[in-house]
Amino acid sequence: MSAQRLTQGTRSLILQAAFEIVCVYGFAGVTLGHLARKVGMSKSGLFAHFKSIEQVHLALIAYAVDVFRSDVILPALDADEGLPRLEATMSKWLEWTARPGTFGGSPLIAGFFEFDDREGAVRDSLLEQEVAWRDHLRQLVAATVATGTFRQDLNSEQFVSELCGIYYSFHVSARFLRSPESRATALLAVDGLLNRAEVGTRH
Amino acid sequence: MSAQRLTQGTRSLILQAAFEIVCVYGFAGVTLGHLARKVGMSKSGLFAHFKSIEQVHLALIAYAVDVFRSDVILPALDADEGLPRLEATMSKWLEWTARPGTFGGSPLIAGFFEFDDREGAVRDSLLEQEVAWRDHLRQLVAATVATGTFRQDLNSEQFVSELCGIYYSFHVSARFLRSPESRATALLAVDGLLNRAEVGTRH
Repeated sequence: MSAQRLTQGTRSLILQAAFEIVCVYGFAGVTLGHLARKVGMSKSGLFAHFKSIEQVHLALIAYAVDVFRSDVILPALDADEGLPRLEATMSKWLEWTARPGTFGGSPLIAGFFEFDDREGAVRDSLLEQEVAWRDHLRQLVAATVATGTFRQDLNSEQFVSELCGIYYSFHVSARFLRSPESRATALLAVDGLLNRAEVGTRH
Repeated sequence: MSAQRLTQGTRSLILQAAFEIVCVYGFAGVTLGHLARKVGMSKSGLFAHFKSIEQVHLALIAYAVDVFRSDVILPALDADEGLPRLEATMSKWLEWTARPGTFGGSPLIAGFFEFDDREGAVRDSLLEQEVAWRDHLRQLVAATVATGTFRQDLNSEQFVSELCGIYYSFHVSARFLRSPESRATALLAVDGLLNRAEVGTRH
């Protein structure tokens, strides 16, 4: 195995460990000390891979975005364009959050609250990802307008903002309140949002 | 001034500093070291007032709840029972979050994401406060049903969950995305939620 492949493997292990930490403790918990203990390396060993904790945080965001893309965005592309694809995306999104264990709970969302009043590269990166995700959702909504399912005059910004709200409420209900009703409540809210967007409905 | 009043005054100063920290850095940022630097005391000086950082976090939750009560819950009681009081509460809630500076951004909400996968007294206290707040919102909804404005068959759990979602989305939009449209978007979503709950509307 080449030295480069070994380095890549170690880097992946570090990011996997960082991902497990951020899911439980947020970005504030991803410190060099915590990470070094978890992967069984010295802090100086970590420095061979990442020059600062900020570099870890930025790589972690890219890593989480990759997981999100392969678990949520890509599988939904199998569904037909328009409403089926929008529904598949929303369903995968809710599923991802509710998954027990470390790979769930959308670590980036906790970051929205951690970095709302702080400046810097981590905030900028989180913001860029969230803007891209909302753009993706808006495109799915626009496609559902184009296929004739949703009203032509639908305000897609408003739709996406309300959809994100339903998602955040689901996240809090499922993972913080741990309510057994969280999924049913979210699906009912999503149904209402979709129905109100459809052609021929009052709005 | 008595020794007890001096102690109370110092305790308030410490909690005020902790509140300013939590608004920006979350609970993870409220460490004994950070707090000692901010109030200009030694860590051992802090220990005379709080036996552990967990005690600080618990006192901070109680402090934030007091601020929330006097800024949001109590002023809304001036409005008439039913829809006016529900609307006044929602309006004060949104206003509180959007306020620039330290007294805004509902520090407890960041805690929902920080403590979703962690156990302990801080989580338990945050949970208790959130359950109480949702109970308060449900009572306001029930009163709006009782005054005949909202439908008798309204699902108040669902209503409160969707309202919280609108609030979380507003919080992210105003404080993380820093969108100038955040308030208008939230008010439009709230209007829709209220209209759908009213007597004589389709649901």
